[in-house]
Amino acid sequence: MTKKTSNQMWGGRFAAGPDAIMEAINASIGFDKRLAAQDIEGSRAHAAMLASTGILTDKDAEAIREGLLTVLSEIESGDFQFSTALEDIHMNVEARLKEIIGEPAGRLHTGRSRNDQVATDFKLWVRDQFDAFETGLITLIEAFLEQAEAGADWVMPGFTHLQTAQPVTWGHHMMAYVEMFGRDLSRVRDARARMNESPLGAAALAGTSFPIDRNMTAKDLGFDRPSANSLDAVSDRDFALEFLGAASICAMHLSRMAEELVIWSSAQFRFVALSDRFSTGSSIMPQKKNPDAAELIRAKIGRIFGANVALMTVMKGLPLTYSKDMQEDKEQVFDAADNLMLALAAMNGMVRDMTANRESLEAAAGSGFSTATDLADWLVRVLGLPFREAHHITGTLVAMAEGNGCDLPELSLADMQSVHGEINETVYDVLGVHNSVASRMSYGGTAPVRVREQIASWKEALK
Amino acid sequence: MTKKTSNQMWGGRFAAGPDAIMEAINASIGFDKRLAAQDIEGSRAHAAMLASTGILTDKDAEAIREGLLTVLSEIESGDFQFSTALEDIHMNVEARLKEIIGEPAGRLHTGRSRNDQVATDFKLWVRDQFDAFETGLITLIEAFLEQAEAGADWVMPGFTHLQTAQPVTWGHHMMAYVEMFGRDLSRVRDARARMNESPLGAAALAGTSFPIDRNMTAKDLGFDRPSANSLDAVSDRDFALEFLGAASICAMHLSRMAEELVIWSSAQFRFVALSDRFSTGSSIMPQKKNPDAAELIRAKIGRIFGANVALMTVMKGLPLTYSKDMQEDKEQVFDAADNLMLALAAMNGMVRDMTANRESLEAAAGSGFSTATDLADWLVRVLGLPFREAHHITGTLVAMAEGNGCDLPELSLADMQSVHGEINETVYDVLGVHNSVASRMSYGGTAPVRVREQIASWKEALK
Amino acid sequence: MTKKTSNQMWGGRFAAGPDAIMEAINASIGFDKRLAAQDIEGSRAHAAMLASTGILTDKDAEAIREGLLTVLSEIESGDFQFSTALEDIHMNVEARLKEIIGEPAGRLHTGRSRNDQVATDFKLWVRDQFDAFETGLITLIEAFLEQAEAGADWVMPGFTHLQTAQPVTWGHHMMAYVEMFGRDLSRVRDARARMNESPLGAAALAGTSFPIDRNMTAKDLGFDRPSANSLDAVSDRDFALEFLGAASICAMHLSRMAEELVIWSSAQFRFVALSDRFSTGSSIMPQKKNPDAAELIRAKIGRIFGANVALMTVMKGLPLTYSKDMQEDKEQVFDAADNLMLALAAMNGMVRDMTANRESLEAAAGSGFSTATDLADWLVRVLGLPFREAHHITGTLVAMAEGNGCDLPELSLADMQSVHGEINETVYDVLGVHNSVASRMSYGGTAPVRVREQIASWKEALK
Amino acid sequence: MTKKTSNQMWGGRFAAGPDAIMEAINASIGFDKRLAAQDIEGSRAHAAMLASTGILTDKDAEAIREGLLTVLSEIESGDFQFSTALEDIHMNVEARLKEIIGEPAGRLHTGRSRNDQVATDFKLWVRDQFDAFETGLITLIEAFLEQAEAGADWVMPGFTHLQTAQPVTWGHHMMAYVEMFGRDLSRVRDARARMNESPLGAAALAGTSFPIDRNMTAKDLGFDRPSANSLDAVSDRDFALEFLGAASICAMHLSRMAEELVIWSSAQFRFVALSDRFSTGSSIMPQKKNPDAAELIRAKIGRIFGANVALMTVMKGLPLTYSKDMQEDKEQVFDAADNLMLALAAMNGMVRDMTANRESLEAAAGSGFSTATDLADWLVRVLGLPFREAHHITGTLVAMAEGNGCDLPELSLADMQSVHGEINETVYDVLGVHNSVASRMSYGGTAPVRVREQIASWKEALK
Repeated sequence: MTKKTSNQMWGGRFAAGPDAIMEAINASIGFDKRLAAQDIEGSRAHAAMLASTGILTDKDAEAIREGLLTVLSEIESGDFQFSTALEDIHMNVEARLKEIIGEPAGRLHTGRSRNDQVATDFKLWVRDQFDAFETGLITLIEAFLEQAEAGADWVMPGFTHLQTAQPVTWGHHMMAYVEMFGRDLSRVRDARARMNESPLGAAALAGTSFPIDRNMTAKDLGFDRPSANSLDAVSDRDFALEFLGAASICAMHLSRMAEELVIWSSAQFRFVALSDRFSTGSSIMPQKKNPDAAELIRAKIGRIFGANVALMTVMKGLPLTYSKDMQEDKEQVFDAADNLMLALAAMNGMVRDMTANRESLEAAAGSGFSTATDLADWLVRVLGLPFREAHHITGTLVAMAEGNGCDLPELSLADMQSVHGEINETVYDVLGVHNSVASRMSYGGTAPVRVREQIASWKEALK
Repeated sequence: MTKKTSNQMWGGRFAAGPDAIMEAINASIGFDKRLAAQDIEGSRAHAAMLASTGILTDKDAEAIREGLLTVLSEIESGDFQFSTALEDIHMNVEARLKEIIGEPAGRLHTGRSRNDQVATDFKLWVRDQFDAFETGLITLIEAFLEQAEAGADWVMPGFTHLQTAQPVTWGHHMMAYVEMFGRDLSRVRDARARMNESPLGAAALAGTSFPIDRNMTAKDLGFDRPSANSLDAVSDRDFALEFLGAASICAMHLSRMAEELVIWSSAQFRFVALSDRFSTGSSIMPQKKNPDAAELIRAKIGRIFGANVALMTVMKGLPLTYSKDMQEDKEQVFDAADNLMLALAAMNGMVRDMTANRESLEAAAGSGFSTATDLADWLVRVLGLPFREAHHITGTLVAMAEGNGCDLPELSLADMQSVHGEINETVYDVLGVHNSVASRMSYGGTAPVRVREQIASWKEALK
Repeated sequence: MTKKTSNQMWGGRFAAGPDAIMEAINASIGFDKRLAAQDIEGSRAHAAMLASTGILTDKDAEAIREGLLTVLSEIESGDFQFSTALEDIHMNVEARLKEIIGEPAGRLHTGRSRNDQVATDFKLWVRDQFDAFETGLITLIEAFLEQAEAGADWVMPGFTHLQTAQPVTWGHHMMAYVEMFGRDLSRVRDARARMNESPLGAAALAGTSFPIDRNMTAKDLGFDRPSANSLDAVSDRDFALEFLGAASICAMHLSRMAEELVIWSSAQFRFVALSDRFSTGSSIMPQKKNPDAAELIRAKIGRIFGANVALMTVMKGLPLTYSKDMQEDKEQVFDAADNLMLALAAMNGMVRDMTANRESLEAAAGSGFSTATDLADWLVRVLGLPFREAHHITGTLVAMAEGNGCDLPELSLADMQSVHGEINETVYDVLGVHNSVASRMSYGGTAPVRVREQIASWKEALK
Repeated sequence: MTKKTSNQMWGGRFAAGPDAIMEAINASIGFDKRLAAQDIEGSRAHAAMLASTGILTDKDAEAIREGLLTVLSEIESGDFQFSTALEDIHMNVEARLKEIIGEPAGRLHTGRSRNDQVATDFKLWVRDQFDAFETGLITLIEAFLEQAEAGADWVMPGFTHLQTAQPVTWGHHMMAYVEMFGRDLSRVRDARARMNESPLGAAALAGTSFPIDRNMTAKDLGFDRPSANSLDAVSDRDFALEFLGAASICAMHLSRMAEELVIWSSAQFRFVALSDRFSTGSSIMPQKKNPDAAELIRAKIGRIFGANVALMTVMKGLPLTYSKDMQEDKEQVFDAADNLMLALAAMNGMVRDMTANRESLEAAAGSGFSTATDLADWLVRVLGLPFREAHHITGTLVAMAEGNGCDLPELSLADMQSVHGEINETVYDVLGVHNSVASRMSYGGTAPVRVREQIASWKEALK
């Protein structure tokens, strides 16, 4: 059966007439219809400008602007018939406009071309995504701040190499992600500011001889200014690549948190419980909770960064100005943006819903001689030993504890003094996990007081 | 307006309840419905085997097998109502089967799980693509063979660095692509053979205690054998990565030919004329033909290799066995396969339709002292000079010709002898472009007789 | 200080004369000297053929062949002075040859060019890597076979989503990797066979008018045949891309095992102990063992697949034939091959040295009601219930056990019969983890008897 | 011979003892010695702070700071013996320091760890690269400004799809690249500002209990502030990914200009002549100039973006905090930065040296009815026709000219009026290429006056 299906489907493909193949590879309306609102917004601004500069009559401009609103409402209501023969969203909208308002529709395209039109539409769309990206990041940062605040002084293992290294606080760990997503936020804002120049009026590539006012359309569309070179305006897509780059780095950050959630929710770790809403169960093992959402978030970096690779590859080595290759820009950005927003929203939901298992965290934090570093630091700080020597003594004491089957705080003072005579009672102050984290008071350190300062500072910043 | 749209759309996203977000990120039915035929084919084979081994009654199996055909016909006719609540194609099909045949539907899932089921479905789909890939390559190779045959002895410039180096034949250039796509063909066949093992019966991951017959289902579904390890069967996707790898290399080859078509159809080169069917015109410049299809083909390597990156990134570092991350495998392969087949079909159409401009090619072949190497080789071959010395003499003669504003064959014998006294009349036999190409008789060389041998050999191979 | 360093270094760069910059970007001797042995091997075969076909005298050929051995021994002993002014390995070798043997050195380059020479050298080098890749895979497979044999019947949890799903055997898990690396092995062999065609004699691009014998050099160099099209021979690098593709898939497999080793050696899992030789310790926490080698192996997919991306991007859209862009092929393959071989060797060492913690594995295997599926299957198999109903009953019993704080085998028969009256004593036969794995006798299943069959079959295959 | 070499080399690899393999995969000194200056700079700042806060005595700190300068001078002079047994640059430097100054060397590592040390070193190095990147971009922009100024009013074809679309000016085309590299410059500055936070004092991951002053070291090292979360400080590498992202986009821009140079210097185009310094010749065809540098620049996007893929893949899914995987960060950034700087320098040299062939450009600009759009615009602007009707009339006139074998300005007024009666003499004012470009006065347009404004504005901005 498979084989037959294949023959029907693909034999058909290769037997199809050239016209069918050309239409299939050439038409973009299947995806660029997502730009409908942006296309109409841009055309309305263009029409208003053409009237203001006297290139169109006010009457024609008004007819165009009203007619475009009608087209938009048809599209939004789902009544619009998209036509592949009309290739793209621009021609679909203009053809329908002509049906509605007649001859003046033909005057709309004065002083512009499809090249600057599509660049404008796409920039407006990408700018929207930057705004959504910003919203998503802020929402997610707030979720982490909430978790951090709740557990600012809960202790947990700080890992290197997935091996317990030192105790840290839950709040501190949550705040590490706030820093990461905070840099993502800054990256998004910089990129949005950089791309906010209007291509409209660059025309096909050379500018136009009509006395258009590019500042006016730029302002109308919320751009900071018109782009300064018409060749560049229609032929670069670095703004889309920068979006994909920022999205990829954010997806990388998300993948790290997602990995932690998968590991933390294993039976062996039990550091967190995910909510039912973000897990799936098994009809047969009701206690089982699969961290599906975390796994899917972890995976999203694949397609988001894959889109970055795709568009970078497309743009490599294209001579100026517009080449049809660039039609491949949109689907990549659409897919990456959709999946990024979904991943941000799902991570936000998971983080808000998750419950830290405070007891497991604390138990794990104290195991594995996790305060050995604190002991070594005490030897340096209090007894004045060089760092490397303090390390050596600590190693001996840990080996002694391991031999005795006890933990460091359970070694007697006599035992300790047998290794270094000057050790005194105050050493016990640094050996428990709570003492340990409280002592790490350096700026950015894990002490609860430091963590709370950071939380407060971020809340202020997001106000 | 943009801002508002954004708020509505994305504010909505982030304000959506967790359930809506989870459904959006978790459900796969939106894309895995493309596996419907494969899913039903696999289930029918499974049911037949369950009856054959006595696990199901013949009656139940028959009801299931008939019911599945009904479901398939509903899907193919477009009448089927896909449900997102049922998550994926497997549950959609099974739920509908239960509506149609009742209780026996619940017995179908005996001795298998969704993990081996989806691996089977996906492998069947990918195998179809390998078959389509093979068909597309053969069709394309035949198109190049046709061009090669028509112009086996037409001369054109052979370029290095996009600079004329030596004359070659059009047929030889076409046959270079036959070799490239021929290796692609071999790659596809190897990969298809390697992946043709059946995961069905691996169950969730550990195999099953039911006395199933995996050889029977494997044979039924056209697999060479069942896979030998159930953990591996449900958790690797290397077959999909190998498909994407082969597709990427083929797309690279396509991008090179596409680049040549773009350059060759420029006003400056005029080496080929593309047919109207694979170009687009300008309403304003009727003589203009944009090589849109070639540009789109050139660009396809972006998304195809992007898909490879995406899936490779997803699979990196996943512990065994199935993780939900792997749900991201399908859309990448779907998109890459669709675009590869489209690119192959479009290139096939372009190559069949294109017209080489024989005069332009020949004129370009002879310019730039392109037979200087032939002169040097003559000096070595006939006069017995060392290669490096022959090069030096040739350089002097080319400089002389350039100074005289003539081409090499136009230098007098006296001129030539002034540089090296032993040069004689027979040197003129190697200086024209036709003489040059005819002389390159080494195996694989550009001489028309060699090219025709290769054409014949490929025709024989494809019979 | 940094700033000053930067100015010195980079200011210098941008202030450097064009000649220095051109030399820096253009010369390849810095890396292509790794091809010295291949270059000399190819030249020796070429010289022998030139003599055999009468193009060179036997005396000259002998002088060349002996001289080249001298050059090789100088290079191998480290005495050779590489010159950047001579750009590449070919010119370095030939220049030195001329110093040693004088004028006949100038005759070596007859009937070939640097284009076919470098393609030949590089293919020979890559072919060596395929051989090393094969050796590495076989060695690694043997390491897994050893582990599988030792623990063919040890039980451990089979995970999906890093959640315990069903018990499996250690041997079965090890054998899953044997299958993966086994497919890698098959991929390597196919690719090596495909690329084993000799470019030598393709000359610059068009073939040559000298009566060379390409079959002879091909045979001498261990190639299966000469390549059939001279344009293709000098301008494709698909063999390198296929090497990188196979290496990337293998690196993906390695990254999965590496991830498991990192997780398994965490304090929370304790499934394996790595040897000291493949871990690093902490001077301060002597019990700590960081799985450094596993982490580095996990990371290697980055640079190996990065190299694949790099070369694919380079090759995109290059017109025929040779372009200087292609000089970027070697460093990518060198780095990927070096790191792949290192990762294979390190994984081999880790797998051979690691000790499975049999008690931890067994304890984990039995937790989490991991035999619930066995119970459900029993209900279907023995009582003849439909699968979906059996699942429902099992869910109820698991919930009951969870409520009682006991495991499934500890539920009384009366308890069980309260849920479904037909359940009888024999159900207890499938509930323990050892019963469970022993029962999964389907082909490819986890039953020890099946695992041992696979081990035997692989040992036979590798003989 | 190859085979034997392979066996020796690789057989050796796989036969090597585990210790040799572990050292080979684990040691980083082979590449991280490039961080020597940064490592010593960071340690000197750390020592000064330890003294200032009373953690070290002034005497010890001074001995350390002086000793480190000695180590630096040994390294810079090439006298330093790097030891693989000491693994990395940090241990190599510290070990040598101890040899020089004895016991106080052991006190340097107080209040820090290798985790924050390497993050600091690497950030300092990457920051230097951002500075070099900035310098390189400014230098390159100035080269384009020079070309733009020289040819602000030279005409050339503006291409879409590599087909002549409309005439533009050489200056305008040059300025398009100024805009692209200008955005790269802005991207670099944003990224540098974002990453300029000091990790030093984050210690292993949790901060420290020593009363260190992180603001002091941050200031000393030119950072804007200390990083706010110690876990994040040691475990993120987004700054390196952002560097690679910005480098990749810039490399994409470079690849486009490089492609143009390759095409423009073909015999068919002859738009520019490259200088001898950035081309290579042929010993046999002295008139031939291969655009090697342009091709190599075009290729550099491969390895630069490949590095981006590599590091993104490495970072995917790593749990906090430091994992050894992250050791793979440096080589990628080193290689990408080196090649980016080289490509920028080479492009700078090529652009400064290249000579535009003004006559070829102008001839090409006028061919192909390139002012058809101007005619259509005239019909709209002067006669008030709707855009789409004007296009139709223009198409008819172009077809007429093509039929007559003449260009548009050579059609008689009578001919023109036969198509549309209202056309008058003034139409000829827009038909020549110089008229055409002069008329495109819209902001950002190709009119020389606009181009000169942009040049002036950029010169001002770079002052």
